[in-house]
Amino acid sequence: MNNTALIMIDMQKGFLNPASPCYIAGAAATVPACAKVIRHCRENRIPVFFVTRRYRADGSDVEHTRFAAWREGGKPVSPACPDAIGMDDPEEFGTDPSDYRVFKPRFSAFFQTELDGMLRRLGIRTVVLAGTTTPNCIRTSCYDAISLEYNVAVLTDCTSSATEEIQRSNLRDMENIGAQLISGADWMAGAPINDSAAEVQRLVQKGI
Amino acid sequence: MNNTALIMIDMQKGFLNPASPCYIAGAAATVPACAKVIRHCRENRIPVFFVTRRYRADGSDVEHTRFAAWREGGKPVSPACPDAIGMDDPEEFGTDPSDYRVFKPRFSAFFQTELDGMLRRLGIRTVVLAGTTTPNCIRTSCYDAISLEYNVAVLTDCTSSATEEIQRSNLRDMENIGAQLISGADWMAGAPINDSAAEVQRLVQKGI
Repeated sequence: MNNTALIMIDMQKGFLNPASPCYIAGAAATVPACAKVIRHCRENRIPVFFVTRRYRADGSDVEHTRFAAWREGGKPVSPACPDAIGMDDPEEFGTDPSDYRVFKPRFSAFFQTELDGMLRRLGIRTVVLAGTTTPNCIRTSCYDAISLEYNVAVLTDCTSSATEEIQRSNLRDMENIGAQLISGADWMAGAPINDSAAEVQRLVQKGI
Repeated sequence: MNNTALIMIDMQKGFLNPASPCYIAGAAATVPACAKVIRHCRENRIPVFFVTRRYRADGSDVEHTRFAAWREGGKPVSPACPDAIGMDDPEEFGTDPSDYRVFKPRFSAFFQTELDGMLRRLGIRTVVLAGTTTPNCIRTSCYDAISLEYNVAVLTDCTSSATEEIQRSNLRDMENIGAQLISGADWMAGAPINDSAAEVQRLVQKGI
């Protein structure tokens, strides 16, 4: 039984379009690699969770530290903003009846969302993280996932940052706390993800 | 009325002693600066929260990614480990009847702890973060605090990392999402921390 899920985070047009005030240099270049991984998961019955940011039009759920940029930038990444800098995923991702969609109000895919409950219901033990940005939404999701007992793999070529240096330093820090770094191609080719969570569970159950 | 609290994270001997398997280069050097800030807070009725890691002896609450190191390292940072590499704070911090102590099982001071509830009860709107390590427990606490509507200041000389580069890159990432970087000396001398949370609350309440 498959106990792995792909978590595709915040690959919304608002972050991909150079005309958007939320533009993340590097994110658009990962769209093809992300699209390949999404297709692979759908073909192999690996659940795909699209976890994306959504704000209310009155600003009541926008982080206070982002509020000025959100208001001045035409309220990007909100249902109220123009489609071109909006909340939709790129067309390359397509849609599938098996997709799950979760809206999050903060950085982490787990923060005040139903994601953890759904993953538990599905028996997911390993989460594969992709999307943008590496220092913020990928990284907070990584720390939360490890804290919640999931194995975590981060797809190095399917995540992105404003600069190469930010990308590198954040991947290193995540690896230092036990996340596994792997390329989308290697993962699709069968490179294993360590099931550290199951191993530790067995050790504690039998009494270390 | 004071609406600021100091959150002193994981400055336990287990991270400060070079003989400990959890030793963080850089942490011991921050003890004097941390001790000064703690004393300042006690003298000025700014609540001090010591939030420290504690694991159960059977390993049932150790992160799976840290489990092997915890077991092989003589279960550091646990009630079961020798005092020399244990969970106590350095003597320089002293104790005060007004101190709060919170135990956390994961990186973030907010993850599955009572901290947020206590801060709300006390009317705290701004948290000042100090302790170790910058990339892990300080940073996850910073993101969670912003997500929970607190203003966040990180004391640059009262936080530490395994290398200077890790310290720099993590301070930069936190500043990028709206945390304020400030030295302990400047903060004690009266440098203000922006009350962005209150400002945004007023804007949303009156209808933006």
